Amino acid sequence: MTTTFELPRTETPPEPKKTGSFTIIAWSGDLDKIWPTLILATTAAASGRPTSIFFTFWGLFALVRNDRGITGTSWMQKMLAFMNRGGIANVKLSKMHFAGMGKAMMMSLAKKYNVASPQELLELAQDAGVRLIPCQMTMDMMGLKREDLIAGIEEPVGAATVIALAEGDTTLFI
Amino acid sequence: MTTTFELPRTETPPEPKKTGSFTIIAWSGDLDKIWPTLILATTAAASGRPTSIFFTFWGLFALVRNDRGITGTSWMQKMLAFMNRGGIANVKLSKMHFAGMGKAMMMSLAKKYNVASPQELLELAQDAGVRLIPCQMTMDMMGLKREDLIAGIEEPVGAATVIALAEGDTTLFI
Amino acid sequence: MTTTFELPRTETPPEPKKTGSFTIIAWSGDLDKIWPTLILATTAAASGRPTSIFFTFWGLFALVRNDRGITGTSWMQKMLAFMNRGGIANVKLSKMHFAGMGKAMMMSLAKKYNVASPQELLELAQDAGVRLIPCQMTMDMMGLKREDLIAGIEEPVGAATVIALAEGDTTLFI
Repeated sequence: MTTTFELPRTETPPEPKKTGSFTIIAWSGDLDKIWPTLILATTAAASGRPTSIFFTFWGLFALVRNDRGITGTSWMQKMLAFMNRGGIANVKLSKMHFAGMGKAMMMSLAKKYNVASPQELLELAQDAGVRLIPCQMTMDMMGLKREDLIAGIEEPVGAATVIALAEGDTTLFI
Repeated sequence: MTTTFELPRTETPPEPKKTGSFTIIAWSGDLDKIWPTLILATTAAASGRPTSIFFTFWGLFALVRNDRGITGTSWMQKMLAFMNRGGIANVKLSKMHFAGMGKAMMMSLAKKYNVASPQELLELAQDAGVRLIPCQMTMDMMGLKREDLIAGIEEPVGAATVIALAEGDTTLFI
Repeated sequence: MTTTFELPRTETPPEPKKTGSFTIIAWSGDLDKIWPTLILATTAAASGRPTSIFFTFWGLFALVRNDRGITGTSWMQKMLAFMNRGGIANVKLSKMHFAGMGKAMMMSLAKKYNVASPQELLELAQDAGVRLIPCQMTMDMMGLKREDLIAGIEEPVGAATVIALAEGDTTLFI
């Protein structure tokens, strides 16, 4: 990891009043949504809040290993995986992706202005103790198996666990 | 209703600490957003939390009756309804819809893995006492009348009611 | 400002139980997301809640001055600004925009049904004391300078401030 995620220069963060839990339901698999998800989660963890990300629907593909090709067992699952390749290094912009050119420009600007990449932020999140939790139902439907996903994440759970997590102080759907 | 919505097999949900209210602002009319909205809402209701969904903007079209054709009174409203057909059976995927093929694949996978369809979840939500609340402003703008919407929902309200609902424990914008 | 933002006619808003803070992370630059962001924020402020909007990623472009042309210093930033023109008067619908026709229809319907435009709501938000806060990191990456943005907004901040704001009662990601 060559770039460090740093607070912007002008910032003097206010003193947090309490350290309640911070939970994100990561539904989107778009690069420009995964990015704020990981920035918010690592910042919340850095300020001492117990932080969890629940990866569901398209968002779960960000937890697929980058070196995994087509996932799934049935032809429908394989076709979905073909059109929506998993791995945090492979996620695309929600708009202005332009066959990868928009993404390359955005990544280049991020590097220039010292903003960590999603890949780096994911590792940073794991180091900071952010709980990365895959959605069981999505794994079933998409035919994703435990060995398709990166190491260092928790056991898959379902909606009831998310509702319990959402009892915490802040819950965002991204 | 043939399929039952069940918790994933591996799940041992944590004991909820309290049973505060759970509110979703359902802005999106996409199938892949309506789905988690209804899964989260029915799960929250099942765990004893007072649950409400406020349907606004594109999301309100999910409450239109499936047998309703073109809605609206002015030609602009009719044109919007033509391009964005209402009814929970007619909602489309936000991506990879492919003229219905992507949706058909997703619905087929859901059935195979015992995940209830949005139509079934909507009925389940009503049975579980989830409050389904349409947005008055959207009804006005889109020219939707009370008889265009399904039975068993509440009277339309505006933003001030949503702000009051949002005083509860969890509020998500989906 | 010719149109007034009014509560829908049928509404009898419930009495709010408390007046906790209300925070929106405005990530999207789409007209149909900026609209509910500003409606919710002005309504929250009107009901006495301390309200803030943090404008980040595509959302920050809504704070660019309408008379600003291409922003940015590097060619990549200029190209991004060219394809995603800033200014609240220039934002587009997330779907059915149709080269501006869909937007024109929506704005026309809004006017007819007495719903304030995003431009009017932005001014209303400023009058009502809603804090409009730009994201420093986005300004850096997109090459936006303070003079590119409208008057009457706060100094740019980063994620740590947002996490502290999110300690409040309601936090939405839109």
